[in-house]
Amino acid sequence: MSSTPRSALALLDSAHPDGFRPASPIEPHLSVLDLAATRGDGVFETVGVRSGRPQALDAHLARFLRSAASLDLPEPSVAHWRAAVLAIADELSDLPFAVVKIVLSRGVEGSEASTGWVHGREAPDHSAAQTDGIDVVLLDRGYRHDVAATAPWLLQGAKTLSYAVNTAALREAARRGADDVVFLSSDGVVLEGPTSTVLLLRGATLVTPGPALPILAGTTQAAAFDFAASIGLETAVEHLRVEHLRAADALWLLSSVRLAAPVRSIDSRAIAIDTGFTERLNGYLGERRE
Amino acid sequence: MSSTPRSALALLDSAHPDGFRPASPIEPHLSVLDLAATRGDGVFETVGVRSGRPQALDAHLARFLRSAASLDLPEPSVAHWRAAVLAIADELSDLPFAVVKIVLSRGVEGSEASTGWVHGREAPDHSAAQTDGIDVVLLDRGYRHDVAATAPWLLQGAKTLSYAVNTAALREAARRGADDVVFLSSDGVVLEGPTSTVLLLRGATLVTPGPALPILAGTTQAAAFDFAASIGLETAVEHLRVEHLRAADALWLLSSVRLAAPVRSIDSRAIAIDTGFTERLNGYLGERRE
Repeated sequence: MSSTPRSALALLDSAHPDGFRPASPIEPHLSVLDLAATRGDGVFETVGVRSGRPQALDAHLARFLRSAASLDLPEPSVAHWRAAVLAIADELSDLPFAVVKIVLSRGVEGSEASTGWVHGREAPDHSAAQTDGIDVVLLDRGYRHDVAATAPWLLQGAKTLSYAVNTAALREAARRGADDVVFLSSDGVVLEGPTSTVLLLRGATLVTPGPALPILAGTTQAAAFDFAASIGLETAVEHLRVEHLRAADALWLLSSVRLAAPVRSIDSRAIAIDTGFTERLNGYLGERRE
Repeated sequence: MSSTPRSALALLDSAHPDGFRPASPIEPHLSVLDLAATRGDGVFETVGVRSGRPQALDAHLARFLRSAASLDLPEPSVAHWRAAVLAIADELSDLPFAVVKIVLSRGVEGSEASTGWVHGREAPDHSAAQTDGIDVVLLDRGYRHDVAATAPWLLQGAKTLSYAVNTAALREAARRGADDVVFLSSDGVVLEGPTSTVLLLRGATLVTPGPALPILAGTTQAAAFDFAASIGLETAVEHLRVEHLRAADALWLLSSVRLAAPVRSIDSRAIAIDTGFTERLNGYLGERRE
């Protein structure tokens, strides 16, 4: 009867035997001095949930730990975070599609304790993007392709809360009439989307950008490579340029909740969608478990 | 009698006739869905306060508006923010040194309303940095010197809440035994510190990096140029390289609360401090009003 969207919240709490406790998703829980809010100083993961079952949770938790280490945050207790995610996912198990975000902040300024929470809610409907495809624009990320190795303090490859550039890039895409972005390095190497991984099909090979680029290792991309192996496709991790995107047999942006969104245009120039392959890929991705 | 540090908080509130209302600085006020906390999606300013009088408040509010515009945030009501800062500064007027942070976030995910707050507290004691100087290291910011013009979605020049890189750079400095950082562009142009502006003295000229670099326009740097004019020094805004830092007659990092911190070494190589000039400069900066 209520129009409030379904949601659930757990706060990490080292004083609690489970390591977390349920909390009202409506009430405020964060101090204005929390470094998440004043510095974007923390890390996160977004996990897709299908009928109460989190997808690729191990992969997300593993990346969460790597991100936390990049920021010199205290190592998260995987057991506590896993249990909290499972509890929140279970609370929303009547929903076919939910999304759980897990956040670890450096904590309140001046305190020694980190802040953590797990928030779940009904997932938005991405079926149009999965079926009709998305229009993308190419934007310069400003960094050279090798910056992750030369300047680790830029935190490229960590999933930090400092996403203002990612959201600004998505607004720039909207201004240009597009749905999403593919970032290029300042020296023209294909990187990633603001919240997604690039994947393309070239003949009988699935290709994703890498290695050693300033990008996130995609959990959904890893699953797409498992799918490739399961159907006899080869896989490759390569430095790609714009011409490789345009010459691809199909191109997708992969993410944990929207899954594989086929790209139907790059900078307003149409490219072909492979509807059948996309359906099979999303079928595989949708069936994943922990 | 209490060991709790003195602090005060106002929440921006469009439903209130003043546009803000006082709030407990101890209680939580932010939703875990606030985009400040989940995306670093907002802007801020840090204002020095001396005995209840905010310093350079007009300049800070002007930059706050420019930052908000860069992020396509709703335009802040200057009158409300100014009144909130003055109220918080007044509450702490018995403190010789206080610091007020003003924060505007895009708001809670899914809501149309932005979130804003003004938090004041006792300022840390920076007299040692002002007197003895600071050790800095040079770190690559990863961006070319002209990236602000070519890629505005990177938000360089806006003071956003996405400061994870700034804080990571300061941790890298600490690892190297230093106090602070001077960022260089990927093509070797001197930019700024993670929370400060570079200033150097060359003969009878005060010089700061610019123009059109991917850096913040420093409110304290603007005041330092006023100081220069008041004592008959020339000023210049130039592209500088590391050799210009080393060849300077004196070098400082300027910020709103620490004011002018003389640099005593760059990458462990000592450079001379001009104690007399630093004292006069900080005397001038400390006397500023709105």
